[in-house]
Amino acid sequence: MEIELIATGDELLEGTIADGNGLWLMERLAALGLPVRRKTTVRDRRDDILDAFRAASGRSDLLICSGGLGPTSDDITAECAAEAAGAPLVQDDATWESIRARLERRGIAATENNRRQAMVPKGARVHANRFGTAPMIEVAIGRSRAFLLPGVPREFVGLCEEILLPQLGALSAGAPVRRVRVLRCFGIAESHLDDALDGLAARFPGLSIGYRTTLPENHVRLVVVGPKAEQADAVLEEATREALRRIGPACFGSDGATLPGAVARALRARNATVALAESLTAGLGAALLADEPGASDWLRLSVVAYTDDAKRAVLGIPAELLATDGAVSERVAAAMAEGARRLGGSTFGLSCTGLAGPGTGGSPEPVGTVFTALSAPDGETRVVRHRFGGDRERIRRFTAYAMADALRRHLGGTAGPA
Amino acid sequence: MEIELIATGDELLEGTIADGNGLWLMERLAALGLPVRRKTTVRDRRDDILDAFRAASGRSDLLICSGGLGPTSDDITAECAAEAAGAPLVQDDATWESIRARLERRGIAATENNRRQAMVPKGARVHANRFGTAPMIEVAIGRSRAFLLPGVPREFVGLCEEILLPQLGALSAGAPVRRVRVLRCFGIAESHLDDALDGLAARFPGLSIGYRTTLPENHVRLVVVGPKAEQADAVLEEATREALRRIGPACFGSDGATLPGAVARALRARNATVALAESLTAGLGAALLADEPGASDWLRLSVVAYTDDAKRAVLGIPAELLATDGAVSERVAAAMAEGARRLGGSTFGLSCTGLAGPGTGGSPEPVGTVFTALSAPDGETRVVRHRFGGDRERIRRFTAYAMADALRRHLGGTAGPA
Repeated sequence: MEIELIATGDELLEGTIADGNGLWLMERLAALGLPVRRKTTVRDRRDDILDAFRAASGRSDLLICSGGLGPTSDDITAECAAEAAGAPLVQDDATWESIRARLERRGIAATENNRRQAMVPKGARVHANRFGTAPMIEVAIGRSRAFLLPGVPREFVGLCEEILLPQLGALSAGAPVRRVRVLRCFGIAESHLDDALDGLAARFPGLSIGYRTTLPENHVRLVVVGPKAEQADAVLEEATREALRRIGPACFGSDGATLPGAVARALRARNATVALAESLTAGLGAALLADEPGASDWLRLSVVAYTDDAKRAVLGIPAELLATDGAVSERVAAAMAEGARRLGGSTFGLSCTGLAGPGTGGSPEPVGTVFTALSAPDGETRVVRHRFGGDRERIRRFTAYAMADALRRHLGGTAGPA
Repeated sequence: MEIELIATGDELLEGTIADGNGLWLMERLAALGLPVRRKTTVRDRRDDILDAFRAASGRSDLLICSGGLGPTSDDITAECAAEAAGAPLVQDDATWESIRARLERRGIAATENNRRQAMVPKGARVHANRFGTAPMIEVAIGRSRAFLLPGVPREFVGLCEEILLPQLGALSAGAPVRRVRVLRCFGIAESHLDDALDGLAARFPGLSIGYRTTLPENHVRLVVVGPKAEQADAVLEEATREALRRIGPACFGSDGATLPGAVARALRARNATVALAESLTAGLGAALLADEPGASDWLRLSVVAYTDDAKRAVLGIPAELLATDGAVSERVAAAMAEGARRLGGSTFGLSCTGLAGPGTGGSPEPVGTVFTALSAPDGETRVVRHRFGGDRERIRRFTAYAMADALRRHLGGTAGPA
């Protein structure tokens, strides 16, 4: 099966944003054993879009097109697809009703512009989009089956996950099986992961290993290709066990697992709760943990005490300590974690204080210096000194992760055999 | 001048790596007023590359192709270009000598494979590559001038910087000028922006308008193309003023401006500070504001009070109020904003309480219901009831923006004429 992607949008040709949708989908298709043959990116111009549809539909079986399904006048993908298919554009009443109802629920009156999103090539199959207004349109163009998807990443990914990829997965039966497992790690360098897994690929038939840094996480990809599903699955399981044994506690989960999820599981298992006192992360630490649904069961409180005043008044950090050690110090980090635990009435307290830059505010420490602390019910408070590289955003993000990871490791929340 | 990019390489269609060369070059070309019309990514297959050259050379003036100039058998770009140009492949003696000398200096004997890199279409112009072995090849194909560059980023970027871009810059001296302004908005639907700006493009020579949603922001792109720089600049300024007048306070800035930056500017102008009390955003509100460097000057405190206990104990929300109205209510939002302002000793207090889902925790309100409040030094507290659509992450992100935006609008921090 020959697959082509078509991405529309002036902004994709100006270098300001990459087509993350396309990249994501290519990877997912490759995982199904369905590689992409060609990708074409065109402006929001009728001639260009039409030509892309016509050329692609003359040579490939499946076209997946993203973008240009919005309500504005430069959204012309559906009408171009209709013209390429030789079909008139007609209103899909169910879509129009759902758009009206959706907007109404949010107190917005539908305009004639919104009606554009309900216009589809006659004979097309319309797949409702529960992530947004524009539906996914499935239409025959020439020898191809074309799927038109909105370019908004959430909607694109949602529709692919729920409808498109399962359909294509069924089509790909019979092809060589490809199994992938991603091991998600934090607190270990890519080169160390590579060392730890040295020689592993040679020990298992059809196994290859790849590394990818998606800051602040490092991911290991184990890929097994083989003729039979059961065999590939078995090899993948065994290789995963061996990889986890070698990587150790830096791996917090596999595939779709998240660090907040690992923290949540470990806390729930002990019926424990946590409170935070944050400085440089300014709320990112709590926000990271609260990415996990149901976090209100175990995340009791976070105090963002950006200033010394706030550290004193709200967290009870002694003014003398701030004066002698400075806000960015081991003892202030410890006092913050203990203050958070006391104030939140929680099992654990977490804290961070450090220098995200650009300036150091008079501190003798360099930018990137960060202390994280964990106050535990055994009465001990453990402080770790970090030195993170990069800019303000990177330092804050690594710090938020480091706080969550300190709690995970303390609770033993590592990835078991998947 | 119509420009197309062609990128070759199986790896670019597998989703594991993005084509950074293309993204970089697009941005550089846009800055020269030379936008890219289309980009095609193809596998390392003869038929696909040949077809890409033939189709592109039939419609565009300039083709820039990356990849496939290496010494291995899957490097076939030069021979495909020769075939598309209808010219034989011949050895460029100067290139062959330089490859031999380059390898010799590193103690490597040149092989017949290396000779492939010296083979160019007859009549092509060869530009020496001081960053690597493969030269840049300039060849006429159909009506187009094609430049073939190696895909190694260091070589690609080096050759573009030193040879290609200066040449194109000279070409573009007489070309129409292109000026772009992005107006960044929050709290207005894309379809309403389109309505507000209806007819604007027709009123200014060379103006076109595009829309882009980068949740939770909506962006309006004003593009002016004209023969002269001063004229295009003047049209853009005037069109921007008119667009801002029509859009109203929903626009918080233009081009690289950010919402936290607009808040920071407005607060600094009044020497004012802010403190937050957050529930569902769990720190995202403070983290958003702290994206702005130097936020510690005006962001005093944020309390993430996820639980009723924390709302009572830390923010002083009366237990009776929580019992009668529920945590997700107008009066609790107001009391949280006032509590934050008091606790932080700040000029303003901001708060949010709402239901991010998936569950509603027994609240009678539906998921997506959010109250944001602003407590101001005039003694008034303004509460807004929102109804956000989408999933947990989207609702939290919109809420964080809504808090910041309430303060911005209160302070009059709208985009002036840029």
